[in-house]
Amino acid sequence: MNDTFLKACRGEKTDYTPIWMMRQAGRYLPEYQKVRGNVTFLELCKSPDLCVEVTLQPIDILGMDAAILFSDILILMEAMGAPLEFHEGLGPIFPETIRDQAALDRLIIPDAEDSTGFVMETIRLLRKELKVPLIGFAGAPFTCATYLIEGGSSKVFWETKKMMFTNPQLFHNLMDKITEATIGYLQAQARAGAQALQLFDSWAGILAPGDFAEFALPYVQRILASLQQYDIPLIYFANNGATLLDLSITSGADVIGLDWRINIGDAIKKVGNRAVQGNIDPFSLLLPKDKLRQRIARLLDDAKDAKGHIFNLGHGIHQFTPPEQAKIAVDAVHELSCK
Amino acid sequence: MNDTFLKACRGEKTDYTPIWMMRQAGRYLPEYQKVRGNVTFLELCKSPDLCVEVTLQPIDILGMDAAILFSDILILMEAMGAPLEFHEGLGPIFPETIRDQAALDRLIIPDAEDSTGFVMETIRLLRKELKVPLIGFAGAPFTCATYLIEGGSSKVFWETKKMMFTNPQLFHNLMDKITEATIGYLQAQARAGAQALQLFDSWAGILAPGDFAEFALPYVQRILASLQQYDIPLIYFANNGATLLDLSITSGADVIGLDWRINIGDAIKKVGNRAVQGNIDPFSLLLPKDKLRQRIARLLDDAKDAKGHIFNLGHGIHQFTPPEQAKIAVDAVHELSCK
Repeated sequence: MNDTFLKACRGEKTDYTPIWMMRQAGRYLPEYQKVRGNVTFLELCKSPDLCVEVTLQPIDILGMDAAILFSDILILMEAMGAPLEFHEGLGPIFPETIRDQAALDRLIIPDAEDSTGFVMETIRLLRKELKVPLIGFAGAPFTCATYLIEGGSSKVFWETKKMMFTNPQLFHNLMDKITEATIGYLQAQARAGAQALQLFDSWAGILAPGDFAEFALPYVQRILASLQQYDIPLIYFANNGATLLDLSITSGADVIGLDWRINIGDAIKKVGNRAVQGNIDPFSLLLPKDKLRQRIARLLDDAKDAKGHIFNLGHGIHQFTPPEQAKIAVDAVHELSCK
Repeated sequence: MNDTFLKACRGEKTDYTPIWMMRQAGRYLPEYQKVRGNVTFLELCKSPDLCVEVTLQPIDILGMDAAILFSDILILMEAMGAPLEFHEGLGPIFPETIRDQAALDRLIIPDAEDSTGFVMETIRLLRKELKVPLIGFAGAPFTCATYLIEGGSSKVFWETKKMMFTNPQLFHNLMDKITEATIGYLQAQARAGAQALQLFDSWAGILAPGDFAEFALPYVQRILASLQQYDIPLIYFANNGATLLDLSITSGADVIGLDWRINIGDAIKKVGNRAVQGNIDPFSLLLPKDKLRQRIARLLDDAKDAKGHIFNLGHGIHQFTPPEQAKIAVDAVHELSCK
């Protein structure tokens, strides 16, 4: 068992810097495309056997030091009763937006095993196969709320902020319900065997620090507090969250995820006695081999004072990234960080 | 003449904090919609009389302390020979993307008076009418380059970064050409009578600090250096640029624009002996009057140690903002900052 990832999360000494990549099980891999060719995205998410297959691909093909459950952060929103559609090229769509109390009242707090048993089954199956640790995950409540309020992705999040600023009570009620559902969902993942849990706050970065503190952070804190009992590393990733770091470190996370916009050395100074995960620009995987290796060497050096460092991209790997470029990065991290 | 804005830019004492809003001449105003109803967006940009009319509207209606020339950052790209289209709801489109040297060679460095004389004429006409200072502007080269490379707006800027990382020479050649054109364009604006000049770097925030330093900042520095001779305040606004502040202060700008993601007090510590412009979340204009005034009071207090502070939004005012809410903000800034 390769437990380098878990050790780094706990700030223990490791022989080398572990690496995994957000969205490592995904469209950039021809092997994934082959599986995906026969089913819709949602069908794939709900088929434990196929989820196991695609989750394992980047471990086998690229040599990642951790696996992340193949799923989607919005699976839980569907389980809460919000019909979810994926249309090719358009991203996720919730045709029934949540913009008033009546719509919110129709959402339920589901039983995780009943409504998302396929996720727990995937975790149980993966644990039998994997030789690296398995990360479970959920969307952070603020990010999930934006999808429900906007009805999908958004460029400016007008409806979300309109609710925050003109009907804060409704917004907090929605956050509260998502939070309760997420606690049940992640506790079930931990019980099923997830060895670390990550909260993805993809849209936290649209918030001013004061609004993040008021409208988003308290719910992250509640979720992470409810997971302490499982004694597994908890990771919080606030995308575009460089100005929220002072607040994110109060989230209760053991590991702080970092996007590429901040120098990792600067971030480590703020994060203090915690591990960090990140953070090269995913598109810099396109660099010629020697330049990519130089960039990785520089990042490893900048991160040398971290309490623990898990190498990752600053965002998900892009679908057009050549897998051989991802492999160059994995090998470079392993070689160049060898102690 | 109300020169509060110019004084604040220079770090001189003012009786109150001046305010203007990015995109203050725009779709949220019914008076603008009326003008715009009869012409296309590009026709409006090229009609000095109409540009004068809409530029004056927010000054007259809302009491702003500065006017900003009504135009678009991509007008110069069109003058360089890139056909430009605006489609309702889709944003700007460049059907002929610039992705190789041959395409780049077809772009020209235009004579500003010949090719964008309507902009200079607008400035000359405005100076006769205005009782507040007039800001001219251009897009920063990196931001303009993304539009030419992507062919319009983008969510992830794959093509831009692909060029940066796989063909840096071509990217620098493009930046160089845009920079030369921008220098001519802004120098002409200064000669026509612009009393301050702002560079809008709307997409700088997609760059890691190291890449910003290599691929974007040197061109901003070159432009701002070429404008020193006019002895008017120069403003640099890197949107989503909190992690780039250490670099942005080397741009040569007198005033650093700030988006809402950073606490203005934290930013002022980094910016040091320079004025700042910003930075409330434009959507927070939706807050009820008492809460909006509280938020403005807090921001003014956080900014009290600035060498100079021009109140602004952290981004353009959104088209669905009720003008009366913008008026509440203008009045609050004037009242609450009164010394």
